Amino acid sequence: MLVNRRNWKIEWGDCDPGGIVHFPRYLFFFDSCTVSLFEAAGLPKRQMLKDYNMAGYPVVDLHVRFLIPSLFGDVVTIESSIREWRRSSFDVWHRLLRGEALAVEDVETRVWTVRDPNDPERLKSAAVPEDVRARFT
Amino acid sequence: MLVNRRNWKIEWGDCDPGGIVHFPRYLFFFDSCTVSLFEAAGLPKRQMLKDYNMAGYPVVDLHVRFLIPSLFGDVVTIESSIREWRRSSFDVWHRLLRGEALAVEDVETRVWTVRDPNDPERLKSAAVPEDVRARFT
Amino acid sequence: MLVNRRNWKIEWGDCDPGGIVHFPRYLFFFDSCTVSLFEAAGLPKRQMLKDYNMAGYPVVDLHVRFLIPSLFGDVVTIESSIREWRRSSFDVWHRLLRGEALAVEDVETRVWTVRDPNDPERLKSAAVPEDVRARFT
Amino acid sequence: MLVNRRNWKIEWGDCDPGGIVHFPRYLFFFDSCTVSLFEAAGLPKRQMLKDYNMAGYPVVDLHVRFLIPSLFGDVVTIESSIREWRRSSFDVWHRLLRGEALAVEDVETRVWTVRDPNDPERLKSAAVPEDVRARFT
Repeated sequence: MLVNRRNWKIEWGDCDPGGIVHFPRYLFFFDSCTVSLFEAAGLPKRQMLKDYNMAGYPVVDLHVRFLIPSLFGDVVTIESSIREWRRSSFDVWHRLLRGEALAVEDVETRVWTVRDPNDPERLKSAAVPEDVRARFT
Repeated sequence: MLVNRRNWKIEWGDCDPGGIVHFPRYLFFFDSCTVSLFEAAGLPKRQMLKDYNMAGYPVVDLHVRFLIPSLFGDVVTIESSIREWRRSSFDVWHRLLRGEALAVEDVETRVWTVRDPNDPERLKSAAVPEDVRARFT
Repeated sequence: MLVNRRNWKIEWGDCDPGGIVHFPRYLFFFDSCTVSLFEAAGLPKRQMLKDYNMAGYPVVDLHVRFLIPSLFGDVVTIESSIREWRRSSFDVWHRLLRGEALAVEDVETRVWTVRDPNDPERLKSAAVPEDVRARFT
Repeated sequence: MLVNRRNWKIEWGDCDPGGIVHFPRYLFFFDSCTVSLFEAAGLPKRQMLKDYNMAGYPVVDLHVRFLIPSLFGDVVTIESSIREWRRSSFDVWHRLLRGEALAVEDVETRVWTVRDPNDPERLKSAAVPEDVRARFT
């Protein structure tokens, strides 16, 4: 199973008046790390949008646990992988580590979404292409 | 039970190249609406930080379901309430409506957190004050 | 000359560990207020993109002065108007007021940009349509 | 003169429905690169806040020119340096390069700000310490 690791520096502007990361920013980090995971699998998002007539892989369900806060100046590590594949959806799993400790854990369910060939404005879910899936194993 | 309603305008900068709200922005909206809910209960956050020696009410668990996307220019309504109180934690429930339709639903578990009187840098969870709780019923 | 006024509430997540608005957020506010100014002139952005084959009005030059900081919980007022029109560009002027006091002042130069009818991916500057301009006087 | 270089990856969530970086995000990048410049000079921000009784170096004036847009997936380079020192203020100069081409240029005037020793809530400008300045030459 492909696991991608990305270091992320916590910036001053990521943090709130309490001095810790404002939690919506973590979701920005995780969304970016989903893109990086696909890149690591040889599937840059810009390319996928063209090659697969894809419109995106919007999140339909999100579950996050926040265990340890992070402070500006910290450099954390985010480990990302696909936890489960279904026909047209899949679960991305992100673990944000502060040193060795698990600080935030996120599971996002995303749906493979394509443009209707007859009407590019219409979007619909579709089966994840076999060759996309194959790249993660 | 106190329910607060707040209209929120979706801005150009809230949306991504797919033309829909970038999902981490919803969490920014919901965090702001939690502040508004407490305000509607007569508890502005700036005042609470002083009156209760409070450091905040950080989110420890988050569960979001995304049902319908929103587009820039939309004005949506967010309904917020406290779904459950426990000793030192509580669940905030946000329902984002696009017209009549439920578009996003979020449940956040937050922990009432105070500063140690002997060492203001040390934070710890504490029982939610009775008079805070009373204002929501 | 059309002047649009919009109240803006400063949220917890707009502020940094110093407790004041993180300055890039002001630019988000101003960009949103430019959209609101055009709306007040009867020109919603979503409609303009269709009606004028317009791709946007990107900022090419920005000058901001920060005079007084704002804190979370503040409600400020932003006054927006077009300070000068040129053939294909114009200057938007934003004044953010905290009570009566000018807190931030911004002048943005924006360029009217359209899609090439023969190749919608190609963008180019164009003269601001007469009827757009007329709505601001 | 110390020049710091930092690569910055443009994320999906940095971009707007036009498919290009939403301009306020550039200011987030530049604010982060100011922190990195001081770090490169041996002055991490967290440390400075302690060692110099410093409250920050807020921006009072900002001038940005946007020459070339950037797209999600791009990796750009930001070169940062101090262009001029005055008694209690200084100009940070950022040049964002897309390949070899200058894409965005920013000059920020910042003021060295300290806490009043008798009242830590009161902030005031102060002369930039000699040893801080010395580290940039």
